[in-house]
Amino acid sequence: MKSKVIGLDIGGANTKLASSDGTVVELHYLPLWKNTQLPGVLKEIAERLRPEKVAVVMTGELADCFEDKEQGISFIMEAVDAAFGPGKCSYVNSKGRFRQESEGLRELAAANWAASARLIGKELGDCIFVDVGSTTSDIIPIIAGEHRAGHTDFSRLLRSELVYAGTLRTNLAALLEKVKLEEGYCRTSSELFATTADAYLLLGEIREDQFTCETADGAGRNRTDAMRRLARVICADLSEIREEDILEMARQVKEKQVSLLAEAIFEVAEKNGVRRIAAAGLGEFMIREAAERLGFECVSVAGHWGEEISKVFPAYAAARLLDSEKA
Amino acid sequence: MKSKVIGLDIGGANTKLASSDGTVVELHYLPLWKNTQLPGVLKEIAERLRPEKVAVVMTGELADCFEDKEQGISFIMEAVDAAFGPGKCSYVNSKGRFRQESEGLRELAAANWAASARLIGKELGDCIFVDVGSTTSDIIPIIAGEHRAGHTDFSRLLRSELVYAGTLRTNLAALLEKVKLEEGYCRTSSELFATTADAYLLLGEIREDQFTCETADGAGRNRTDAMRRLARVICADLSEIREEDILEMARQVKEKQVSLLAEAIFEVAEKNGVRRIAAAGLGEFMIREAAERLGFECVSVAGHWGEEISKVFPAYAAARLLDSEKA
Repeated sequence: MKSKVIGLDIGGANTKLASSDGTVVELHYLPLWKNTQLPGVLKEIAERLRPEKVAVVMTGELADCFEDKEQGISFIMEAVDAAFGPGKCSYVNSKGRFRQESEGLRELAAANWAASARLIGKELGDCIFVDVGSTTSDIIPIIAGEHRAGHTDFSRLLRSELVYAGTLRTNLAALLEKVKLEEGYCRTSSELFATTADAYLLLGEIREDQFTCETADGAGRNRTDAMRRLARVICADLSEIREEDILEMARQVKEKQVSLLAEAIFEVAEKNGVRRIAAAGLGEFMIREAAERLGFECVSVAGHWGEEISKVFPAYAAARLLDSEKA
Repeated sequence: MKSKVIGLDIGGANTKLASSDGTVVELHYLPLWKNTQLPGVLKEIAERLRPEKVAVVMTGELADCFEDKEQGISFIMEAVDAAFGPGKCSYVNSKGRFRQESEGLRELAAANWAASARLIGKELGDCIFVDVGSTTSDIIPIIAGEHRAGHTDFSRLLRSELVYAGTLRTNLAALLEKVKLEEGYCRTSSELFATTADAYLLLGEIREDQFTCETADGAGRNRTDAMRRLARVICADLSEIREEDILEMARQVKEKQVSLLAEAIFEVAEKNGVRRIAAAGLGEFMIREAAERLGFECVSVAGHWGEEISKVFPAYAAARLLDSEKA
């Protein structure tokens, strides 16, 4: 890379990396909740890329291995500072600005979308930035270059600016209380028997190589294993239900998630007087469908900035902001 | 014990044991999905109690460590036969009868409530047997001494004879899509951040020693840890919300679960023309409330057979049936 600035997006399950010139893009599956490898992987990155400056956004502080958000934030900051040297690291706060020494740590919580929102506001103008990732959906109003979203996940859940459902990791039990089958409505199991990745793989919305999370039962990511997991959601195995019923369940997962998303986007759009969406994330297909139902314009982040960069957009945005502000 | 007949109820998370005279009652936390200790524990039981006959009911075959139900059933049967000797073991099928050699293995799937239903039908007459356990709620119509429920979990989910929600292990994300707080409706996280045990501990419906499942975050079973887990369901920590809000969330968990239960009981009652409930399980408090809302008579299994026996009722019923039929 020519650029000497990189951005890091440290989440509970994944850590993403991008250089400000967009030539380096990396995605590391790096769960914070299981004897995390984060400190070691960050050191490896520091030695390999030798960046001059590092811009950091995070959401991983919510992982339930931490007692509270401060503890999570401190852990992540210590790991980053130890790897790159504290003088080189800048942290994006929930307003999308770089943190001043005087600010509280809590300002850094759940700020990965704040960096994205500032870059999008700069380059695309007023819109609702909707990012459906592996686990959650961010619905961020951007007006006059500034985001207008709540500053904590809790406040965003209250304002429909965060819908806790994603393209891969979401437990189907959290989406579907019942499914409609030929025989009638069937209640579902509340265990973690299958996730949205299973449903979207079966529907052809994601490919097997995009199925980057663990499976609910530890088995494979192929169609048969995914069908077996979906069947288990209604306590059946593959000898008890038809393939068509399983696909019908998968379609109902999508229908429910698109509805949830459209409802939340509509609420945020009404409050902020914007009817234009900037869509990002693996679940862009759901955003396009929600936008169509609402009759909103929908600009693709992947279309504007490129497919690769869109996968690590918060990291890229943080790097870009740091590059332009601290040049 | 004077009796030489014991009953075993082998579930996915717990194995329960009772002698037919009710003097021995044991509950072993014994998950089938993590390098299970089942074979060893069964051998220990065989050596300690030296029963002449063993009646077995099971639901553990659904655990997602097994490829299908046959595999789960075979695994459990092999472990039981190896511990007690195959000649001594009788298996209850989904009709509540002991399996003949000629029957398929699948008849043994999810039959733990079938034994209970036969004993209840014998001693209490026509009723709906409702058992709210740690993980699920069985709603079994019993007419003229025979249960009229579907023979698989799948068919019971379709007929509202199984509601997959219990008193301890149920993920709150599967029950609550939103919670109502003073600030308005708040969406919930879809992770496994808290379970029904946390809510019912905070409401005083279960005691800490009845909180016999693992906690969602691996932390303690005290009030503070339970409150922390409930707060996490709306992505908050204890500094962000009031204790009263957390208790309000817990009350909404109960309200939702009692509603689900009442709705399912009503559906089963209408279909079978019975308005009398036999209530069992740790969640009896929810059944009583549902019965009150429906205006149904409610007989307590714990009241009739005693508190200790009610905790292991399927195991006890299996032992009683074997004792009377094979005497």
